Amino acid sequence: MSFRQELEQKGSQAKNAARRLAFLASSVKDHALYAMADSLEKHMTGILAANAQDMEAARKQGLSNALLDRLLLTEDRVRGMADGLRQAAALPDPIGEVPGMWKRPNGLEIGKIRVPLGVIGIIYEARPNVTADAIGLCLKSGNAVLLRGGSEAISSNIAIVRVLTQAAETAGIPTGAIHLIEITDRSAVDYMLKMNQYLDVIIPRGGAGLIRTVVENSTVPVIETGSGVCHTYIDVTANLDMAQAIAFNAKVSRPGVCNSMETLLVHETIAAAFLPSMLSRYHEAGVELRGCDKTRQYHSAVLPATEEDWATEYHDLIVSIKVVASLDEAIDHIDRYSTRHSEAIVTSDYFNARRFQREVDAAAVYVNASTRFTDGCEFGFGAEIGISTQKLHARGPMGLPELTSIKYIIFGDGQIRE
Amino acid sequence: MSFRQELEQKGSQAKNAARRLAFLASSVKDHALYAMADSLEKHMTGILAANAQDMEAARKQGLSNALLDRLLLTEDRVRGMADGLRQAAALPDPIGEVPGMWKRPNGLEIGKIRVPLGVIGIIYEARPNVTADAIGLCLKSGNAVLLRGGSEAISSNIAIVRVLTQAAETAGIPTGAIHLIEITDRSAVDYMLKMNQYLDVIIPRGGAGLIRTVVENSTVPVIETGSGVCHTYIDVTANLDMAQAIAFNAKVSRPGVCNSMETLLVHETIAAAFLPSMLSRYHEAGVELRGCDKTRQYHSAVLPATEEDWATEYHDLIVSIKVVASLDEAIDHIDRYSTRHSEAIVTSDYFNARRFQREVDAAAVYVNASTRFTDGCEFGFGAEIGISTQKLHARGPMGLPELTSIKYIIFGDGQIRE
Repeated sequence: MSFRQELEQKGSQAKNAARRLAFLASSVKDHALYAMADSLEKHMTGILAANAQDMEAARKQGLSNALLDRLLLTEDRVRGMADGLRQAAALPDPIGEVPGMWKRPNGLEIGKIRVPLGVIGIIYEARPNVTADAIGLCLKSGNAVLLRGGSEAISSNIAIVRVLTQAAETAGIPTGAIHLIEITDRSAVDYMLKMNQYLDVIIPRGGAGLIRTVVENSTVPVIETGSGVCHTYIDVTANLDMAQAIAFNAKVSRPGVCNSMETLLVHETIAAAFLPSMLSRYHEAGVELRGCDKTRQYHSAVLPATEEDWATEYHDLIVSIKVVASLDEAIDHIDRYSTRHSEAIVTSDYFNARRFQREVDAAAVYVNASTRFTDGCEFGFGAEIGISTQKLHARGPMGLPELTSIKYIIFGDGQIRE
Repeated sequence: MSFRQELEQKGSQAKNAARRLAFLASSVKDHALYAMADSLEKHMTGILAANAQDMEAARKQGLSNALLDRLLLTEDRVRGMADGLRQAAALPDPIGEVPGMWKRPNGLEIGKIRVPLGVIGIIYEARPNVTADAIGLCLKSGNAVLLRGGSEAISSNIAIVRVLTQAAETAGIPTGAIHLIEITDRSAVDYMLKMNQYLDVIIPRGGAGLIRTVVENSTVPVIETGSGVCHTYIDVTANLDMAQAIAFNAKVSRPGVCNSMETLLVHETIAAAFLPSMLSRYHEAGVELRGCDKTRQYHSAVLPATEEDWATEYHDLIVSIKVVASLDEAIDHIDRYSTRHSEAIVTSDYFNARRFQREVDAAAVYVNASTRFTDGCEFGFGAEIGISTQKLHARGPMGLPELTSIKYIIFGDGQIRE
């Protein structure tokens, strides 16, 4: 079977399944998710064996330790995947909700009802835990799913999808609701990006390069996720202890994730009071410092920051620091370099807090808190499928409601239009 | 100035203006819209003169009467454009609404606030009234706008945009909020479709060919609009008088618009009772009839329908008719050929009404009413920018809220993440 045939067949099956999934009872979906979780744990040995094959091949290919760690499955991680499915089951079903209904002067009653998107395509890197998470959230929201994971994780993904599909179908999920593209050739992705006939949306999850490829080549609607050049601005009136705690947490607590801070902006009036101890603390924690000329006066370890630094998501223990003359300069800097993910101000000034929240254009704009909170669980949504950095359809952490659309239902008594 | 320079400059100015537009007071926007409406009427003569140039050139080019009628401006039509701006002014401002705010266990307060999309690109055909409508709705919702109208309307569009821009800026709308691409070369559209740096969304308005070109070539997020292969299904238990009134209205009242019906599906049990008078009524109204073999038994004027007929949006007084054996066959036919715009069932059966509304996947699903009601004004939204036939971001008639996004605002007291 050619890859076109494989993709056409899977797309078409997913579309057919989506029709039935759309009005499946919540109880069927939830029981299926619990059964799938149990089945993952039951087939632990087989999944870990498949993952061991991927790991061996990846080591031979010379993958970095960071990538190997993302690829690795352990008993704990498989149990984590199962728990993720159980958490999805426990969330309220978004489908069927009627957010509004009204009556028109001609007697027509018009309602808005929440429905699934249909078929969701997910393109991601070699992180097999994403496979189970994505399947859980898509099924719970009534969507069929077509997955394309990183080629290094192919054996793990095949094993996980086989276990989950069997458990799902046994529990009453329509056949064809879950598909993994097994062809690891890049041309399969190119083909997937043009499958408008079958796919309602594609969500890429991964690094900036993957996202760009998808955005530039997809004719299917895309939700951009993830890329985060996030800033924290320390205003003149900031409580400096609070500022240091927030700026340290935002950079150091988990530098590899998208909501961590990359650039610290500091008002010049408080630079001398704030920066020396802040820079020392970063330095002691092993953070590489790159700063503007003014910043470099306060610590000998600060390397000069280049234009490129301001636009870079380090994903690492590196921070760029700039002293600014005003709130306006801070907002302008953010407007220029931000990826519109998460931005924070630390201030005691009411009007500056208001201006920052109003004028900074990002998915999440914080006053006096760490940008690290931008995350579905921290926002109270439960699990998320990613963090949208675009403004269309969904912005910020995407939970179950963000995997839905609406349709209008109209109840008439024979109305015709004049 | 090359077209690239023109587009880059206009895109960049629009993006800068959007930053200020995002938090402009509602009163400033509303006063500007009223002033723009007055100014259109004040400059009636100049606008009509510009339109006369377009009309003359279009006649020389041999445009069809239908296209010439769309291009034509009259005093009444310009007044209609002005009234459209006044109607937009009178609608509630969607920006700044907080649809929800909640407190997390760690004390963080998280709110969702409605914000503009940013810069909206609109690509449309030679209908100069769309120019004023689009500008009004975009400004009211705090968005900057970059317009690309059909080349045949270029003089009219330049005149309208000049009048509106001057009135808007005098009334306090930021400079650069309104732009018309004046280069009529097709390459300007190609360039616009890749302006991800400046545009947050592109909305194409026009025929299927225009929409397809935009969807296939744009890297900017697109909202598909308009294409409507709409069906009406007459169920066994339908009130046949009601069915005839609805099926006639849906086809005949305005065949050139997207919410008009193209295909009538009739249950075989009532075909003999329903079709003869229905077909005669269509025939007397000058509607061309194309039907399946069973339909053709009931009226001599029915031509054979081809596979292509079922998939065609006629935009004309032509109807295709099919006799079906069951509700299932009707739903399957709709699933196969519908553009997911508007679909209707005429029935007296509670369970069939429910099944149809649940299982048919379209923006608007009607029971016992004409599909002609799918329209922003008829739904009670006021003016609309188009009818979305996709599921992402907006579905059905797009009013002001559909031209917005949200951002999360987070109020903290120094919270950091463990």
